[in-house]
Amino acid sequence: MNHRIIAQVLSRVMFLQAALMLPCILVAFHYRESAFALAISLLVALAFGAFLSLFKPKRTDLYARDGFVSVSLSWILMSVVGALPFVISGAIPSFFDAFFETVSGFTTTGSSIIPNVEHIDKSLLLWRSTTQWIGGMGVLVFIMAVLPLSDHCSIHLMRAEVPGPVFGKVVPKMRTQSAISYLIYIGLTVLLIIMLVLGKMPFFDAVNHALTTASTGGYSTKALSVGHFNSAYIEIVIGVFMLLFGANFSIYFLMLMRKFKAAFTNTEVLTYIGLAGFAWITIAINIQRLYGDFATSLRHSFFQVSSLMTSTGFSSVNFDVWPAYSKWMLIILMFIGACSSSTGGGIKVSRMIMIVKGIRQEILKMLNPRSTVPVRVNGYTIDKQTVHSAFVFFAIYLIVTFVAATFVTIDGFDAETSLSAAVACISNIGPGLGAVGPAVNFSGLSDLSKLILSFTMLIGRLEIFPVFILFLPRTWRKSL
Amino acid sequence: MNHRIIAQVLSRVMFLQAALMLPCILVAFHYRESAFALAISLLVALAFGAFLSLFKPKRTDLYARDGFVSVSLSWILMSVVGALPFVISGAIPSFFDAFFETVSGFTTTGSSIIPNVEHIDKSLLLWRSTTQWIGGMGVLVFIMAVLPLSDHCSIHLMRAEVPGPVFGKVVPKMRTQSAISYLIYIGLTVLLIIMLVLGKMPFFDAVNHALTTASTGGYSTKALSVGHFNSAYIEIVIGVFMLLFGANFSIYFLMLMRKFKAAFTNTEVLTYIGLAGFAWITIAINIQRLYGDFATSLRHSFFQVSSLMTSTGFSSVNFDVWPAYSKWMLIILMFIGACSSSTGGGIKVSRMIMIVKGIRQEILKMLNPRSTVPVRVNGYTIDKQTVHSAFVFFAIYLIVTFVAATFVTIDGFDAETSLSAAVACISNIGPGLGAVGPAVNFSGLSDLSKLILSFTMLIGRLEIFPVFILFLPRTWRKSL
Repeated sequence: MNHRIIAQVLSRVMFLQAALMLPCILVAFHYRESAFALAISLLVALAFGAFLSLFKPKRTDLYARDGFVSVSLSWILMSVVGALPFVISGAIPSFFDAFFETVSGFTTTGSSIIPNVEHIDKSLLLWRSTTQWIGGMGVLVFIMAVLPLSDHCSIHLMRAEVPGPVFGKVVPKMRTQSAISYLIYIGLTVLLIIMLVLGKMPFFDAVNHALTTASTGGYSTKALSVGHFNSAYIEIVIGVFMLLFGANFSIYFLMLMRKFKAAFTNTEVLTYIGLAGFAWITIAINIQRLYGDFATSLRHSFFQVSSLMTSTGFSSVNFDVWPAYSKWMLIILMFIGACSSSTGGGIKVSRMIMIVKGIRQEILKMLNPRSTVPVRVNGYTIDKQTVHSAFVFFAIYLIVTFVAATFVTIDGFDAETSLSAAVACISNIGPGLGAVGPAVNFSGLSDLSKLILSFTMLIGRLEIFPVFILFLPRTWRKSL
Repeated sequence: MNHRIIAQVLSRVMFLQAALMLPCILVAFHYRESAFALAISLLVALAFGAFLSLFKPKRTDLYARDGFVSVSLSWILMSVVGALPFVISGAIPSFFDAFFETVSGFTTTGSSIIPNVEHIDKSLLLWRSTTQWIGGMGVLVFIMAVLPLSDHCSIHLMRAEVPGPVFGKVVPKMRTQSAISYLIYIGLTVLLIIMLVLGKMPFFDAVNHALTTASTGGYSTKALSVGHFNSAYIEIVIGVFMLLFGANFSIYFLMLMRKFKAAFTNTEVLTYIGLAGFAWITIAINIQRLYGDFATSLRHSFFQVSSLMTSTGFSSVNFDVWPAYSKWMLIILMFIGACSSSTGGGIKVSRMIMIVKGIRQEILKMLNPRSTVPVRVNGYTIDKQTVHSAFVFFAIYLIVTFVAATFVTIDGFDAETSLSAAVACISNIGPGLGAVGPAVNFSGLSDLSKLILSFTMLIGRLEIFPVFILFLPRTWRKSL
C-alpha cells in the first residue's frame, strides 16, 4: 500500500476542514458567541494536516485499494476532528454523541441526538450545516476540483466517493467534472438562499437550510424543522430543490451543453419523478382524513415524499402519526433513495432499474435458456458485471440494514423504530419512525447502537465497499 | 406450448387429490360427522380429472415453459378444489377465506383465518393437515414417484417444485430420487406419530401434528397450537423433528448409502444448525426475565426458533409478547428459512451461503480486479450463473415481501404486523407478529390482502418463477 500518498490525501482533507471552520468562527464573532471551541478544533486540524504533509509521496501511483482506504480514513478522521467543536464547547458533552452527530453531518444523514437545536450556538449550527454541505457533493471531489492530482489517482477516489453506478462519462477529464459539479452545486445553493430570503426566512436560517437542502442532509436550525416556518411557499421551494439535488447531476451537465433532449429523457430521472409522483398522490389520499382538505394533504405529502426519497430528512409535520400505508411507503422510498451522481442517498433509482430489468432477464432466461436478453438503461447496454454488482449491492444493503436494526432491537425498540432507524442511517436520511421519528431524536439509543449506526451511515454514504475494505485484514497485507 | 401434456399433468393431480380425500371421508364416518362436503368435493376432483384426461398428449416432450405452467396451474387448481370441503360444509363460508386456508395448507404455510379450530369437524381438520403433508414434499414429486413420466419431463416439474438450488445430484434417476424422498418422508412421519403417542398425545392429534410437522406446515388441531399439550417432551420431540424435516434431505440419502462423513460435513446443514443455535441461545437470554429460570427460557426459545426457522409455525407460547430483539431475530430467521431440498421454506440457507460468499468475491474483485475468487460450497465450485441467480432470487424475494406488506398496510396494520405477515406468507411459516401473531389469526385482513397473500404463499412455495411465468404474457405466445 502507498501509505505516503494516503497521508497526503488525509493532510489535504485536514487543511480543507480547517478552512471550513473559519467562516463559523467569524459567525461566532458576529453573534458574540465564544469561538474558543472552534478555534481549538481549527488548530487541531491544521496540526494534523501539517504533520501528515511531512510524508512526501515517493511514488504518485494510487491503486484501487489505496483509493478506498484513503476515502474511508478521510471520512473517519474528518468526523473525529469535526466532533471536537461540540465536545469542547460542551454543546454535546459525550464524545460518542458528538461523533454520531458529526458522522451524521458529513454523511448528510441528519439524524440528531440534540434534544433542542435552538439552544445551540449559532456558530456551531453553521458548522453542523457546513459538514453536510461539503459531505453532500464529496470532500475528495472538492479537493480534486481545486488541487492538482493525476487523473489516474482521481478516478479511484471519485469511484469511492461519488454515489451510484455511472452510465457513460459526461466529461472526459475527472478534474473538470469535479469542478463543474461543484460550480452547479454552488450556483443552485446560492439560488436557494435567495429564494428562501424572498420567502421571508431570516438570512441565517436561509443559509443553513440551503446548505442542508443542497446536500440532502436535513439538519435544521429549528426544533420543528421546516415545519417551524409554517409557510407553504418555503415548503414548496425546499420541496422542489430537494428533488433537484436528488436528481442525477449529469442532466445539469447536459443542459449546460444544451443537450436538452438527452437531459429530459434520462431513464433514471424519469423513473425517479414517476416514483415520487406515485407516492405523492397515494399518500395524499391516504392522509386526507387527517388534514381534512385534499390541498393540505397534497402539500404535506409532497414535502415528506421529496424529503425522504431524496434522503434529506426535513419534516414539515410529524409524519409518525400518519396511517400505516403512508409510513410504509416512506420506508420503501427511504430504501430506494435518489438518483446516482446526486447528493442523495439510498440504493439509488438506477440500481433499482437495473435490478428490475435483471429480474426480467432472469425470468426470460428460465423460459428459454438460450435467449440473451441484454439489460439496457438510457440506451446503453449494461454489461453483466455491472448488473451483477447492482444485485450484490442490493443484498449487502439489506443485510447491513437488518444487522444494524438488530443492535437497535437489543436496546428494546420495536421493529418499526429499529428498521426505520437503520434505513434512515444507511440511506443517510435522518429521522425514522416511532422512537426515532421526526418529533423525537436518536439520543435514547445506547452508545453501542450509536456507534453501529455511525458506521452504518458511513457505509451508506460511501456505498459500502470502502468501509468494508478498510476492515478487511487482507487490505493491510503487503501484497494482495 | 404443449397444452395436452399440461392437461395430463393436471388430470393426475386431480386424481391424486380425490384419493387423498378418501381417508378423510372414512374419518368422518368414524366420528359420525357429515361426509357430504368431502364426498361432493371428491366427485368434483374425479370429474375434473376424468375430463382433463380426455386430452391425450400427441407429443411427450415437455419444455421448461410447460413445466413451470403445469406446476403453477396444478397448485392453483388443487387449492380451488381443495377449498370446496370448507365452503360446502359451511366451516368457512367465504370462498376467499377457504381459498386462503387451502393455499396456506398446500404451500405448508399454516396461516389460518379460522378463529377457533376446535369447533371444526375432525374430518375437515384431517383434510387440512393432509393438504400440508402432500404439499410439503411436493404434489408432482409424488406423482412422479408413482406414475411413469419420462425423465426429461420430470426434471422440469421437479425443478419447479423442489425448493432451493441443488449442488450435485445424489441419485441419477429423477424417479428413483422422488421415490426415495417419499419413503424417507413417510418413514419419519410414522416414527413421529409413534413418538407423539408415546408422549400421551391422543392418536388423532398425533397423526395431524405429525403430518403438519413433517411438511413444516404448522396447522394444529388445537387453538393454542402445540402449547395446548403443555408437555416439555412433546415440545422437544416436535422441535427436533421440525429441524430434521428442515434439513437438506440429501443428508438422509447419504446416510442410507452409509456415506456418513459427507452427511455430517454438509456446509448447508452445519450453517443451518449454527444459525439455529445462535438464535436459540441469544433469544433464551433475552426472554429470561419473562420466564424466570433459564431452563424454561431455553425450552421456549428452542421450540420457537425451530418452528419459525423451519417455516413450520407452531407455537408453544405467545412469542408476540417477547422483547424486541427476540421478535426481530425470529423475523430474520423467517427470511433465511430452512435448507434447500427440505420441506421448509424461506430464502434457504444454501442461497444465503452463496450470497455471503458472493459478497466476499465482489469485495475482493474491487481490491484486485484481476483476481478470480470462486464461490465454493460443499467442495463444489459454484458457477457464476448459479451465484447470480441466488442474488436475483434474494432481490425478488425481498421486493415481493415489501410489495405484499404494502397491501396489508392499506388495511391499516402497522409495519411489524404487515412485514411479518408478508414474510410469514412468502416463507410459508404461518403466524406473524402483532395482529397476525400466534394468538390471533389472519381473519382481520381484507379480501384483497388475503388474495395477495395467497399468491405470495404460492410464490414462496414454488420459489417465485413458476408463478411469475404463469402471469407473463410472453408465456402464452405461440413461440418464444
